[in-house]
Amino acid sequence: MSLLVVGSVALDSVETPFGARENALGGSATYFSAAASLLTQVGVVGVVGDDFPLSDIDFLRARGVDLSGLETVPGRTFRWKGRYDFDLNAAQTLDTQLNVFEHFKPRLSARARKADRIFLGNIDPVLQLSVLDQVERPRLVAADTMNYWISSKREALLALLPRVDVLLVNDGEARQLSGESNVIKAARAIQRMGAKSVVVKRGEYGALLSVGAETFSAPAFPLADVLDPTGAGDSFAGGFLGLLDRTGRGDLPALKQAVVMGATLASFTVEQFSLDRLRDLTLDQVTARFRSFRGLTHFEDLPL
Amino acid sequence: MSLLVVGSVALDSVETPFGARENALGGSATYFSAAASLLTQVGVVGVVGDDFPLSDIDFLRARGVDLSGLETVPGRTFRWKGRYDFDLNAAQTLDTQLNVFEHFKPRLSARARKADRIFLGNIDPVLQLSVLDQVERPRLVAADTMNYWISSKREALLALLPRVDVLLVNDGEARQLSGESNVIKAARAIQRMGAKSVVVKRGEYGALLSVGAETFSAPAFPLADVLDPTGAGDSFAGGFLGLLDRTGRGDLPALKQAVVMGATLASFTVEQFSLDRLRDLTLDQVTARFRSFRGLTHFEDLPL
Repeated sequence: MSLLVVGSVALDSVETPFGARENALGGSATYFSAAASLLTQVGVVGVVGDDFPLSDIDFLRARGVDLSGLETVPGRTFRWKGRYDFDLNAAQTLDTQLNVFEHFKPRLSARARKADRIFLGNIDPVLQLSVLDQVERPRLVAADTMNYWISSKREALLALLPRVDVLLVNDGEARQLSGESNVIKAARAIQRMGAKSVVVKRGEYGALLSVGAETFSAPAFPLADVLDPTGAGDSFAGGFLGLLDRTGRGDLPALKQAVVMGATLASFTVEQFSLDRLRDLTLDQVTARFRSFRGLTHFEDLPL
Repeated sequence: MSLLVVGSVALDSVETPFGARENALGGSATYFSAAASLLTQVGVVGVVGDDFPLSDIDFLRARGVDLSGLETVPGRTFRWKGRYDFDLNAAQTLDTQLNVFEHFKPRLSARARKADRIFLGNIDPVLQLSVLDQVERPRLVAADTMNYWISSKREALLALLPRVDVLLVNDGEARQLSGESNVIKAARAIQRMGAKSVVVKRGEYGALLSVGAETFSAPAFPLADVLDPTGAGDSFAGGFLGLLDRTGRGDLPALKQAVVMGATLASFTVEQFSLDRLRDLTLDQVTARFRSFRGLTHFEDLPL
């Protein structure tokens, strides 16, 4: 099995009530591949500038991530600056510098085109479509998006949805895309727009999967200390697709498992700033926390 | 087994984006007993004015609820007026008229004093304490409270907590009472303040149980149409305590089941205004929805 992610590799400056970091490793493809590589073989397609500290991602290479699709071009790496208040569910973007990402055109190698599963990170839906035009016969396509694309590139996004098996969005994005304030109605509406299934990420409240008329809900892992929520969504996607790629399944029980694996990986990410927690995470730690979700959510049937 | 609730029986005027009702049946003891009476024998202690349409609660009597502890006194019944916007998680109180409730002093009959389980609805913690001083040897005591008592009757509330097995509060109340913004820390802090366990009700995000170092999380039942959230918390408490009283258990697996039963009853309540949905609800419908929570939350173990 093999998994491909197309997305950003970035340098983030983040401030939360618990600390701050300047120019720390970030980006959707980075979080995604750090999470997914604990479970399966991952390839990255993206771009960095010649200022990017490549040694900071040696740990990905050590975990078997194929970085041959990560181009280095002259110029500065994509930078994002944001702040979180005590309500850690919503980031306030202070600055976005696209830099080399502005002219990014994903070009897939012959090997990348054969990937079984694809994650289209949060980039211009026109580029997401161009990736799908290059891949041969993926068994599962998942995509993320954001408020900016929903309003400014709606047409391309609507063209993308019917080609997507799983759309992963947060509740605000699900509402904006569908025009429905109720999250269940929003997910069903997005399915009618063409996405086969929808995962709504709800920060500290967990995630909700909608497939056909079925719904599955996973809580966030209960953490007393959340230091930095950055990358939670992309780590979730990495755990989700990483498990599906590892098991090779795509049925409803497998999607449920994958949601819990997504919540598991996201919960590790937010325990530290940047990729600090993912960097030295082991599959044993991941498996143990996945299993603790059973105690957190399972209950006995009624004696009635 | 037997269950006692002490709380309000009220007339509510409610406005939501989906409609409005004037002087509709409401109150914590009403919602609680309507929910719990599907599962066990319930007695109500409360007060109404001589304007109260007693025939509106005939359905409770028909379900075996003991209303002999519901006094009728001269004057007007307690009235609450509130509004919900599209964010149905938070009510805006427009008017509260205590009326006959202002001088309410719970007086328990000899039979009520022998109750196995007690729910102290959201009333002055001084009165909640006075109830506990009257009961003989309850096997489980649960209580609700609100922002007003947390700030204005903090001392009485702190005296109450060590006498409570389960405190049921919403997230805002948990944060206010504990001074902790993280909900897990807030629940643990309230346990250290004396409550044996804490259930944090989170509206459309479900509920969280904290017992010792254990956490359990149940989602809200996914509903495409929520008409009126009024009474969801008291219906939750009714389902929760109703099941515990029916099974006679109080261990962790039983508490988990009870949380799901609470979420089940709350989900019916919000489908209609006032007690309209609880009025003709059957145990079969309750059992079926409880079981559908399994598909919503259970998942296969990892093959890893």
